[in-house]
Amino acid sequence: MLLSGTVVADADTVIHDGAVVVEDDVIVAVGDRSTCLEQYPDHERHACDLLAPGTVGAHVHSVQSLGRGIADDTELLDWLFEYVLPMEASLSAEEMHTAAELGYLEMIESGTTTCVDHLSVAHAEEAFEAACDLGIRGRLGKVMMDKDSPPGLLEDTDEALAESERLIREYHGAADGRIRYAVTPRFAVSCTEACLRGTRELADEYDGVTIHTHASENRGEIETVEKETGRRNIHWLDEVGLTGEDVVLAHCVWTDESEREVLAETGTHVTYCPSSNMKLASGVAPVLDYLDRGINVALGNDGPPCNNTLDPFTEMRQASLLQKVDRLEPQALPARTVFEMATINGARAAGFDRVGKLREGWKADIVGLETDITRATPIHDALSHLTFVAHGDDVQFTMVDGEVLQREGEVVVADAAAIRSRAREFAADLDVGS
Amino acid sequence: MLLSGTVVADADTVIHDGAVVVEDDVIVAVGDRSTCLEQYPDHERHACDLLAPGTVGAHVHSVQSLGRGIADDTELLDWLFEYVLPMEASLSAEEMHTAAELGYLEMIESGTTTCVDHLSVAHAEEAFEAACDLGIRGRLGKVMMDKDSPPGLLEDTDEALAESERLIREYHGAADGRIRYAVTPRFAVSCTEACLRGTRELADEYDGVTIHTHASENRGEIETVEKETGRRNIHWLDEVGLTGEDVVLAHCVWTDESEREVLAETGTHVTYCPSSNMKLASGVAPVLDYLDRGINVALGNDGPPCNNTLDPFTEMRQASLLQKVDRLEPQALPARTVFEMATINGARAAGFDRVGKLREGWKADIVGLETDITRATPIHDALSHLTFVAHGDDVQFTMVDGEVLQREGEVVVADAAAIRSRAREFAADLDVGS
Repeated sequence: MLLSGTVVADADTVIHDGAVVVEDDVIVAVGDRSTCLEQYPDHERHACDLLAPGTVGAHVHSVQSLGRGIADDTELLDWLFEYVLPMEASLSAEEMHTAAELGYLEMIESGTTTCVDHLSVAHAEEAFEAACDLGIRGRLGKVMMDKDSPPGLLEDTDEALAESERLIREYHGAADGRIRYAVTPRFAVSCTEACLRGTRELADEYDGVTIHTHASENRGEIETVEKETGRRNIHWLDEVGLTGEDVVLAHCVWTDESEREVLAETGTHVTYCPSSNMKLASGVAPVLDYLDRGINVALGNDGPPCNNTLDPFTEMRQASLLQKVDRLEPQALPARTVFEMATINGARAAGFDRVGKLREGWKADIVGLETDITRATPIHDALSHLTFVAHGDDVQFTMVDGEVLQREGEVVVADAAAIRSRAREFAADLDVGS
Repeated sequence: MLLSGTVVADADTVIHDGAVVVEDDVIVAVGDRSTCLEQYPDHERHACDLLAPGTVGAHVHSVQSLGRGIADDTELLDWLFEYVLPMEASLSAEEMHTAAELGYLEMIESGTTTCVDHLSVAHAEEAFEAACDLGIRGRLGKVMMDKDSPPGLLEDTDEALAESERLIREYHGAADGRIRYAVTPRFAVSCTEACLRGTRELADEYDGVTIHTHASENRGEIETVEKETGRRNIHWLDEVGLTGEDVVLAHCVWTDESEREVLAETGTHVTYCPSSNMKLASGVAPVLDYLDRGINVALGNDGPPCNNTLDPFTEMRQASLLQKVDRLEPQALPARTVFEMATINGARAAGFDRVGKLREGWKADIVGLETDITRATPIHDALSHLTFVAHGDDVQFTMVDGEVLQREGEVVVADAAAIRSRAREFAADLDVGS
C-alpha cells in the first residue's frame, strides 16, 4: 500500500507531499510522493491529509470503559475503592469482553495503535481475545491484587501468579507478536511482598515479558506504603525487583530526589498521565526533571472513569499545557518533546522495537488525519498542529502491523455500532458504586 | 421548529426524550417530547441526540485566527509584542474579514452561539460585518491602543475613542440586537488614563454598551501597571471607571485580596481562560475564590494563537481539571458549575438577557450534539458528558436567535470550504513575527 500526504515521520522529519510505502507488516519506503510513486507504481494507493506514526498509550485501562464518567469529582483512593474496583469486580466475562472491545475501538478510532493495558483481576483473557481480534498492538496484563482489596478482587498470591503465568503461555507473542505480556500487580498498596517478588521472577522467566504497575500517583498511596514497609514507594519497588528497563511505572507524581535517582539509574520507564492526574487531583508529575535525568517518559490516558476519554491528542496537548502552567515556563515541554513522548518514547516503554517512527524497515503502525477542517485552518507547523489542535476525531485511517483497521473514518475490523450498543446495555445495569 | 432529544435545559434540568419548540427567535416550549408533539403538531421537526444551550465564549479574539499556532511556547508579553501584534498590524481589510469569518465559523461549528470578541485596532468593521452575516450573537469591540504599542497599532487617543463611537453608532444593536458593542481598550499597559476614562464615558453615553478588556493576566503586566500608576492593576482600573456590572475583565490571574474585594463589590464579570493561561504559562486564576465571593465567572477560549482552538467543550474540561490539580481538590469545579460558567454566566457577562438556558420565553440559541459515537459511550450523566467528554466536533446543529446556522454538521450560512481556502492563502503570506 502506498499512503500519501504530509508525512510527519518523526519529531525531526516532516515531508510535505510525501508518501509511506507498506509491504506486509513493514514500511519499505518513506519519502517524496512522486519518487515513491515511480518506485512502487503498482501498490494500492490511499491519500490522507497528514500521516504520522500511530500513538502509544503507555498506560490505559481498556476494561474500565463501561465506567466512563461514573465517579467524577472524587479523589483517587475513594474513586478506586468506592467506585472503580466494585465496578471491575461486578463485570461478567461477557461484559469484560465488551468493555475491552469498546476501549480498543476508541483507541483505534482516535489514533492509538499500541497500548500498555492494565486489565482487571478476572476475565483477563477476554481482553486478550478482543485485542487479538481488533488488531491493536498491545502489552496487556491481568491485574494481581492479593492484599487489602475488596471482595471479588482479592486473590491468593500463588493463584494470582499462576493465572498470570497461564496467560503468558497462552497470549505472550500472540497475533504474530502483536500481543505481549506485562506482569501487572495493581500497586504496592494491594500487593504483598511475595506477589511483587513473584512478579519479577515471572518476568525474568519468560523472554520479552515485562512489568507494568502504578506507582506514587497519590499522597495517600505513598504514605500507606511507607507505613507498611518503612520505605518510600520507589525504594520499596526497587527492593522487590520492580524497577529496570523492562518496567513501566504509571504516574510517578510524588517522588523525592533519591527515588528519581533510582528511576534514572535503573532505566525504569515512567508514564505521564496528565488528564488523570488533574481530574483525580493527584498532582503534577515532575516530568521535566525526569527528562533532564534521561528517564524515558511516555504518555497515557489512564482509564475512561478518570479522564474521561482515551483520545491521545487531548493527552498530548494536556501534557504540555500542564507543565507550562505548573512551572510558569511557557517553553516547557514543547510540541517536539510531546510528540516523542506519545510515539517513540511510548514504544520503548511498551517494549516494542521498530515502532514509534515512520522509517524504512520499521513496523507499519500508521495513522492518517484529516486537516481540511475549520479548527485545523491554517496549519503553520505540523508538530504544533498534532500537539495543540489535533483530536482523535481527525483520525480517518489507522493501520497496525500493516493491517488497515480504520479507513475513511470507519473501523473495518469490527461492527462498531454493535459494540457501542452492547456497551450501553451493560452500562445501564452497571454497579456504579456508592 | 420542534427539536427533540435529551434536553439539558440548564444545570438543574435534564429531560430525557425531551423537546424544545422554537417560534421566530424565541423558545416557546421546553418539555417532554410527546407532549410537545401533541401541542405543536405542525412545526418542522429535527431530532438530535443531545440538546443544550449554545455556549458563550466570554473572551475571544476571532481576528487572530490566521495566526493559529504561530507562537507556541512563548510567554505572554513576548508572544504579544513579537508575534501577535505584528500579525494584527499587518492584516489588510480583506484578511481581517477572512480571519473574523474563520473565527465565527469555528465557533458556530463547535457550539459557541454568543461571543465577547476583542477585535483589533484597524478594520474592526470587517468583523462586525462578518458577525452580522454569519449569524452568531456577539458583543464586539474595536481594540484601542494609545501608548507603548508597536507601529501600525498605536493610535491617537481621541481618534481611538472617535472610531469606537462611530462603530457604536453603526453596529450597536445591529442584526435585530444580536450584535452589540463593548468599548475595548487592549489593557492598561497600552492605554493612557485618558483612553481608559474615555472608555467609561463612552459606555455610559450609549444605552447597553459595555466594556471589555484584559486584566492581570501576567506578572509582567501588573508590575508595569504598578510602576506607572502606583496602584495594583484592578485598583487602577477601578479608579478610572473600568469596573462594574457592565465590565468584563478577561483573565484576572494575579489579583490580591483587596482587588478581589473590588471585583466582588462592583459586580465586575471575570472571564476564566484556562487553556490560554496554561499555554502562555500565565498562571492559575483563583476561580474558586471568585465564585465564593459571588463574582460572576464566565469562560473564554481567548485566541487561536494561544489556545490553539476555539472549542468551548475543551475549555469546559480544562476549566475543571486545572482547578482540581491546582488545589489538589478533586471536588473543585464540578461539571454543574462549569456548565453554568459556559452558558448562563457567560450570557450575563456578555450582557444578553434571556440567553444561556433553554427556557420558555428565552432566546432560541441552541446546539445539538451527536452522542452515538464510541468515545461518548456510555453516558452515565449528561452534564458529566458535556463537561469532560464532549468536543466541538460533536455539534451537528447550531441555532442562534431562532436561525439555523448549522444542520447535520454543515454550516448553512456560509461557504465554509471557501473561507478555509481563503484563510490558508492569506496565512501562507502572513507576517508571523520574529
